[in-house]
Amino acid sequence: RRTGIPEGILAEGKTPAETAALAAAALETTGHALVTRVEPADATAVRRVLASEAPDASVVWDERGRTVVVHGSGYEPPSLAASVGVVTAGTSDAQPAREAVTVAREMGAGIRLVEDVGVASIDRLLDGLPAIRAPDVLVVAAGREGALPTVVGGLVDAPVVGLPVPTGYGHGGAGEAALSGMLQSCTPLTVVNVGAGFTAGAQAGLVARAVAGARDDGTD
Amino acid sequence: RRTGIPEGILAEGKTPAETAALAAAALETTGHALVTRVEPADATAVRRVLASEAPDASVVWDERGRTVVVHGSGYEPPSLAASVGVVTAGTSDAQPAREAVTVAREMGAGIRLVEDVGVASIDRLLDGLPAIRAPDVLVVAAGREGALPTVVGGLVDAPVVGLPVPTGYGHGGAGEAALSGMLQSCTPLTVVNVGAGFTAGAQAGLVARAVAGARDDGTD
Amino acid sequence: RRTGIPEGILAEGKTPAETAALAAAALETTGHALVTRVEPADATAVRRVLASEAPDASVVWDERGRTVVVHGSGYEPPSLAASVGVVTAGTSDAQPAREAVTVAREMGAGIRLVEDVGVASIDRLLDGLPAIRAPDVLVVAAGREGALPTVVGGLVDAPVVGLPVPTGYGHGGAGEAALSGMLQSCTPLTVVNVGAGFTAGAQAGLVARAVAGARDDGTD
Amino acid sequence: RRTGIPEGILAEGKTPAETAALAAAALETTGHALVTRVEPADATAVRRVLASEAPDASVVWDERGRTVVVHGSGYEPPSLAASVGVVTAGTSDAQPAREAVTVAREMGAGIRLVEDVGVASIDRLLDGLPAIRAPDVLVVAAGREGALPTVVGGLVDAPVVGLPVPTGYGHGGAGEAALSGMLQSCTPLTVVNVGAGFTAGAQAGLVARAVAGARDDGTD
Amino acid sequence: RRTGIPEGILAEGKTPAETAALAAAALETTGHALVTRVEPADATAVRRVLASEAPDASVVWDERGRTVVVHGSGYEPPSLAASVGVVTAGTSDAQPAREAVTVAREMGAGIRLVEDVGVASIDRLLDGLPAIRAPDVLVVAAGREGALPTVVGGLVDAPVVGLPVPTGYGHGGAGEAALSGMLQSCTPLTVVNVGAGFTAGAQAGLVARAVAGARDDGTD
Amino acid sequence: RRTGIPEGILAEGKTPAETAALAAAALETTGHALVTRVEPADATAVRRVLASEAPDASVVWDERGRTVVVHGSGYEPPSLAASVGVVTAGTSDAQPAREAVTVAREMGAGIRLVEDVGVASIDRLLDGLPAIRAPDVLVVAAGREGALPTVVGGLVDAPVVGLPVPTGYGHGGAGEAALSGMLQSCTPLTVVNVGAGFTAGAQAGLVARAVAGARDDGTD
Amino acid sequence: RRTGIPEGILAEGKTPAETAALAAAALETTGHALVTRVEPADATAVRRVLASEAPDASVVWDERGRTVVVHGSGYEPPSLAASVGVVTAGTSDAQPAREAVTVAREMGAGIRLVEDVGVASIDRLLDGLPAIRAPDVLVVAAGREGALPTVVGGLVDAPVVGLPVPTGYGHGGAGEAALSGMLQSCTPLTVVNVGAGFTAGAQAGLVARAVAGARDDGTD
Amino acid sequence: RRTGIPEGILAEGKTPAETAALAAAALETTGHALVTRVEPADATAVRRVLASEAPDASVVWDERGRTVVVHGSGYEPPSLAASVGVVTAGTSDAQPAREAVTVAREMGAGIRLVEDVGVASIDRLLDGLPAIRAPDVLVVAAGREGALPTVVGGLVDAPVVGLPVPTGYGHGGAGEAALSGMLQSCTPLTVVNVGAGFTAGAQAGLVARAVAGARDDGTD
Ligand SMILES: Nc1ncnc2c1ncn2[C@@H]1O[C@H](COP(=O)(O)O)[C@@H](O)[C@H]1O
Ligand SMILES: Nc1ncnc2c1ncn2[C@@H]1O[C@H](COP(=O)(O)O)[C@@H](O)[C@H]1O
Ligand SMILES: Nc1ncnc2c1ncn2[C@@H]1O[C@H](COP(=O)(O)O)[C@@H](O)[C@H]1O
Ligand SMILES: Nc1ncnc2c1ncn2[C@@H]1O[C@H](COP(=O)(O)O)[C@@H](O)[C@H]1O
Ligand SMILES: [Mg+2]
Ligand SMILES: [Mg+2]
Ligand SMILES: [Mg+2]
Ligand SMILES: [Mg+2]
Ligand SMILES: [Mg+2]
Ligand SMILES: [Mg+2]
Ligand SMILES: [Mg+2]
Ligand SMILES: [Mg+2]
Repeated sequence: RRTGIPEGILAEGKTPAETAALAAAALETTGHALVTRVEPADATAVRRVLASEAPDASVVWDERGRTVVVHGSGYEPPSLAASVGVVTAGTSDAQPAREAVTVAREMGAGIRLVEDVGVASIDRLLDGLPAIRAPDVLVVAAGREGALPTVVGGLVDAPVVGLPVPTGYGHGGAGEAALSGMLQSCTPLTVVNVGAGFTAGAQAGLVARAVAGARDDGTD
Repeated sequence: RRTGIPEGILAEGKTPAETAALAAAALETTGHALVTRVEPADATAVRRVLASEAPDASVVWDERGRTVVVHGSGYEPPSLAASVGVVTAGTSDAQPAREAVTVAREMGAGIRLVEDVGVASIDRLLDGLPAIRAPDVLVVAAGREGALPTVVGGLVDAPVVGLPVPTGYGHGGAGEAALSGMLQSCTPLTVVNVGAGFTAGAQAGLVARAVAGARDDGTD
Repeated sequence: RRTGIPEGILAEGKTPAETAALAAAALETTGHALVTRVEPADATAVRRVLASEAPDASVVWDERGRTVVVHGSGYEPPSLAASVGVVTAGTSDAQPAREAVTVAREMGAGIRLVEDVGVASIDRLLDGLPAIRAPDVLVVAAGREGALPTVVGGLVDAPVVGLPVPTGYGHGGAGEAALSGMLQSCTPLTVVNVGAGFTAGAQAGLVARAVAGARDDGTD
Repeated sequence: RRTGIPEGILAEGKTPAETAALAAAALETTGHALVTRVEPADATAVRRVLASEAPDASVVWDERGRTVVVHGSGYEPPSLAASVGVVTAGTSDAQPAREAVTVAREMGAGIRLVEDVGVASIDRLLDGLPAIRAPDVLVVAAGREGALPTVVGGLVDAPVVGLPVPTGYGHGGAGEAALSGMLQSCTPLTVVNVGAGFTAGAQAGLVARAVAGARDDGTD
Repeated sequence: RRTGIPEGILAEGKTPAETAALAAAALETTGHALVTRVEPADATAVRRVLASEAPDASVVWDERGRTVVVHGSGYEPPSLAASVGVVTAGTSDAQPAREAVTVAREMGAGIRLVEDVGVASIDRLLDGLPAIRAPDVLVVAAGREGALPTVVGGLVDAPVVGLPVPTGYGHGGAGEAALSGMLQSCTPLTVVNVGAGFTAGAQAGLVARAVAGARDDGTD
Repeated sequence: RRTGIPEGILAEGKTPAETAALAAAALETTGHALVTRVEPADATAVRRVLASEAPDASVVWDERGRTVVVHGSGYEPPSLAASVGVVTAGTSDAQPAREAVTVAREMGAGIRLVEDVGVASIDRLLDGLPAIRAPDVLVVAAGREGALPTVVGGLVDAPVVGLPVPTGYGHGGAGEAALSGMLQSCTPLTVVNVGAGFTAGAQAGLVARAVAGARDDGTD
Repeated sequence: RRTGIPEGILAEGKTPAETAALAAAALETTGHALVTRVEPADATAVRRVLASEAPDASVVWDERGRTVVVHGSGYEPPSLAASVGVVTAGTSDAQPAREAVTVAREMGAGIRLVEDVGVASIDRLLDGLPAIRAPDVLVVAAGREGALPTVVGGLVDAPVVGLPVPTGYGHGGAGEAALSGMLQSCTPLTVVNVGAGFTAGAQAGLVARAVAGARDDGTD
Repeated sequence: RRTGIPEGILAEGKTPAETAALAAAALETTGHALVTRVEPADATAVRRVLASEAPDASVVWDERGRTVVVHGSGYEPPSLAASVGVVTAGTSDAQPAREAVTVAREMGAGIRLVEDVGVASIDRLLDGLPAIRAPDVLVVAAGREGALPTVVGGLVDAPVVGLPVPTGYGHGGAGEAALSGMLQSCTPLTVVNVGAGFTAGAQAGLVARAVAGARDDGTD
């Protein structure tokens, strides 16, 4: 794809065999593959098929982000002189946050992960400020009321992508409260759909690419 | 009413004449009256009627909170040894916040008003902390994403009533994002309906009454 | 946590082993632990792990409220000179109501539980009035149309927290009718999200703490 | 119409001239006419046109119910040996309640109107019980949380039609909370749409007709 | 219950043992019991327990309506000189329709069941007209677009209760389209919640009781 | 536009001057113009401007459909050997129905308009059957519960486009009940958005064009 | 059915035995049968029963469309001189698209299937244009944002039926975003409910029948 | 504000005098002011007050974007070596698009505006490709079904911010269809709330600032 966003293979709704076949095909065509939303129960099967079909490839399974990344033996991953920060409010934000990490990393961005700095304990967030202010662009993941990106947006200069997480129950549960809160944020944010770690990581990756391109142009 | 919550007269949907007549009737029966949601355009008419019907009464119009409070000449307002704090995120929260102030004050509570400490500028909020930590119970009003009560709830010991304000536009506008965010808050909160300053003030007033009653029992 | 609300461990979405590990960690740091939303099928496993990891601790499983409470051998639970009343409309309200009971009790409040006084049989409710009027603050749980807190609010002086229960089917089912009814209540109420027994109990506990603090101040 | 429900003319969205013309036409064909949702500002014009077009007819304007009823000089209204009770929670329920009254009365039913017995003051409701228990069928109107039909349904033997009223604001406002509460009622009710006084009155009228028919059969 | 509506035991969410125990208790107190929403897989267990606990009682299982009706040996069921018609659009309406049948029959009403006369084939509906016009009151069940009660309401003199059925998929599925269509019906209807066969049958039963009472009064 | 659908000028949200200017421009480029959603109050101004800017053109205002159609002096409108039937349930369906008529007629289709055959009076609908069965394709407009297209769809062989009309009030009002009912219809229908007469007429016009094209091919 | 739309048997919610019995009955009455929404796990059982009950019939299982088509030995399927095009955006649109194919083919239409031409790669769509422009009527299936029918509608002369597919997650998932996008399309479209392949195919089949009828008339 | 996003003054809901006073205050403190959502009817008044209060300042009114920009005499606006592209589907997207333009321009970005390239005419969009591919970051505005950002995202390398516009009517109107479509987009996008031109421009401005900063670093 000319946009530099890797084609993701969404494992959801596919059998491990189908998923692995699609990954093997991508590997053959593009030299690498990125699989998202792999159920832990399916990961072993996916990896076994890939190991037999592409014995030379490296296959990395990230359980918390539910991704499988495959690099062919000759694949040279991109590397950008720019970084993406991924910030989470709590442990239940890990899955989509790490899906975003994987996509941005595959696009070549440096990654800075700052976890568990939710707004219920403002001190811990302020302690994390130097790390939060360092990257060129931020993805900020939060569930329930989803207030973290608003607070972070008031503390940093970088563009901020809000990533609502499908936690919560009752009215506004399943991420709807977090999504609408981020859309209404009184600090300007852009937003992706509930749980859309892939999209958040891809857009942050594009910003990093634009910044890195500018850095390279300058130094060339 | 035995609960100590004053009977409010909702001016919305009534003519100034109807509103004033109801207030005059309440004044006669109970010695005082509390009118909410008075349009500025109607306030003069309401006050004129009251001035002619009850020339001895004091009539106080609060333009920002859109309330009219009437005390008959012999009325002795209650006074409680307990305080209600009302905190707002921004200027557009003033109307429901001050409606809450008026109700709680009429119930006898001391009032502490802390305005414009929204989460987009966390420094200003932290500066306000001593004032926010002083009252016995808090009403915290916020519109758009409504994140302020969550952050305040993590910084204080007192009970917190979240009051969503009908600001915002687009998806989740008219206070729905703020309401669902407060219901999902990751610090425990109780909540009232969008714009329900009367209800928030009345419940905070009941808490103040319970606390003041305990203080009095102790000292008696 | 400085607010006096115990840190709750939400078992939902965790394995019994993960839950027990978090509880053991809390026990070590704070001397006690409170686990909510434990499936009966998981409770035995959670308790077995805790029994082996913390043999001296008392471990109490409440099947109806789906909570596990752990007190270390040296733990001295708080005790407040104030009480929380928990009122339910019917048997299907038991789970969130008892979750609220457990939280408030862990905060030290005295508990008064009044069950099955739903508005379909107004006589039974009126019979329960003395018990309902005794506590310093009330949590009132109801599902389906959720009318009980409105009726109770008209009969008592204490603050009332409405707790909507996720019963009912069809339009407005899963607690949405009860939530919106409590938000619209014509007697002033504060409200928590559907099924949020923890939040209701915690806020009622804070009110009890404020009242008890006032009683203590007086008597000191 | 063979069902015995009078054809209603909905004034909403029509000019007074159009409304009056339709009423005059109905008068000519059927001997009478029933116009609903007439704005007070339009009522004079409607009545003037009717007075000039049908000078012999009786024209009755009910300002609170916003209905105009026209009986031609030779019209003999039906009269049923059965009664419809219409019960309201508060003054803001008057318009749809009286719309129901007018329809049921035009169908010939005896009418019993019991007003302002909302559940916030259960005593007043219990005082009204004899009047509420007398009619053959009840229409119970309530806005905001709409709990009154549920409570009434537990106290009477007659069929109960819940009539949600479009009051309230914020979440669940405009009658949606009342409607979903009545649909979820834990005493069995049938329900009509928000503000549908005509429908409630018409169905209650059909029940009265069925009962009166049975009474007549017996006595014949 | 004085209203003449039998207390229903909702099996949904209960174990067969719990359900059977509640039924046995009701049998002992009132001489009969009515259980609704029994899963076929649970019916055998419920019946076996009842057979052993109450060997003299008659226990009737209706698989299509998912009800179990228990009559103690000395129980004399009521019998009313009035009838309830239950009309369905298609085979997927059978469960709630027959739940309504069972409740109305237990209240003593004569039952007339007219099935599969949906509006897609208007001829079949017109063929059924004599049967549809016979009863004193009608329950009309329909899913998907739920248009049948509107059409029936235009053809009969009796009161009509619309019973929306939770069929359909996509937008407006799960009975929401049928419910909102019945609430908007251009022939006057009363309505119950989606799938609420119990409620529809109970209210139709009350109308039948009122009519039968009138017949009895006349003939006495 | 190559699709044969005329470019419509939506007057909504434009001043009469802007609307007339756009129509004059379309007239110059394409020889004709079609303006929709013209408020009666604006129609005179639009026509006056057009009369002065294009004195030779014919300008036709349809008040019920709120359309203005302009044909330049040399414009030869298309004429198709196929017909579109437009069927309405009641008088409040006239505006979108006639908007559909105008669009289809401008595309060259013969028009058959059958009005006021709503399902509340099934006899009148059956009387209209010959007219309803004649056209090659049908647009069926209905508001409130929107049941008419379902019933018509069961009686004809032609394709049926359901056109929901924004009537009704309360739950499902503003056309939402009609839309979801048509989407759930138990006779197969295609549907357009609420009030989308232009779209319904345009698609029916395309079907007529396809049929007429086939007729022409055959006869050539 | 006189409309020429085959009666479909919806396997969803039925046992394989029930489904097969209904198909066998349809086969006996009409000479053929069409079963939709057959789970792959059930297909073998359905086919085995049919093979034993109707050994002479041809039974065709389409796994991707989840349909079973049965033709009795003497059945002569219709054949129309007109074609239906079915266009999809991606692989996840296959099931409803092929359900539409099967219905239209059973009605006799020629079929043109153009797959995987989603708007994210506009080149592939433009490559497919000749195939997309050939048929007499189009069904265009798309999930997630559902933009394909809008783009196709701007490129063709034929009527276009939008078929929203229940893919996507988070806000607007399950096909709601696609449905509302198609209803709002700025090129005129008609639309069916989410996943309603049967309905889309049936209406496209009716258009094909009308066109073919016109072709036949001409040539006769 | 340290983030480089100018403080915007929202004129909506303020009198021209209040708006002008806030702008004058901002001018005094920061040397410039940016006012959004100014009604044309109010713009003259706002400008007159500003002209008298700050006679040296330049005051620029953009009628299509409804913004007023004020630069004090000594104000040196920022200038960035990076550009923001703003793309619209049709004329009704102009207001939020130009609000985004103004914000990004005030932040110093070069602006590229490409208008009226909606997906209904794919040719016009492809003609615009060189202009669309030039900027460093894009804001793409679209109403009704909101498909344009998805198509653009597949054609460019730059980050894309989707800006849903509150056009459309009926189901999904007021921008909800466009918002949910962009959130579901099958090319990765970030999104802002309906009509949130300020937010889209501000975030695009931050990306431009990051890119320009990188360019500057390189060249320094
Ligand atoms: N986790 C994910 N979230 C959103 N999009 C994804 C994800 N993983 C893959 N995709 C994208 O989804 C599309 C796959 O669509 P499909 O053709 O239905 O498999 C591709 O464009 C992927 O790049
Ligand atoms: N601003 C307000 N918000 C909510 N409730 C109010 C307000 N003002 C008055 N009320 C209460 O609303 C009820 C008035 O109802 P009504 O009979 O409709 O006038 C009384 O119980 C008042 O105490
Ligand atoms: N199928 C049913 N639908 C609606 N209500 C029912 C049904 N079956 C029993 N009920 C009623 O639901 C109430 C039972 O509530 P609970 O206390 O939660 O068991 C009783 O009032 C029953 O009469
Ligand atoms: N009443 C109408 N309903 C729906 N679309 C319309 C209507 N009138 C005109 N249109 C179409 O709406 C589009 C006009 O969009 P705009 O550029 O916003 O004026 C054109 O494609 C017209 O053909
Ligand atoms: Mg920032
Ligand atoms: Mg805020
Ligand atoms: Mg706190
Ligand atoms: Mg009270
Ligand atoms: Mg009753
Ligand atoms: Mg009828
Ligand atoms: Mg086209
Ligand atoms: Mg791109």
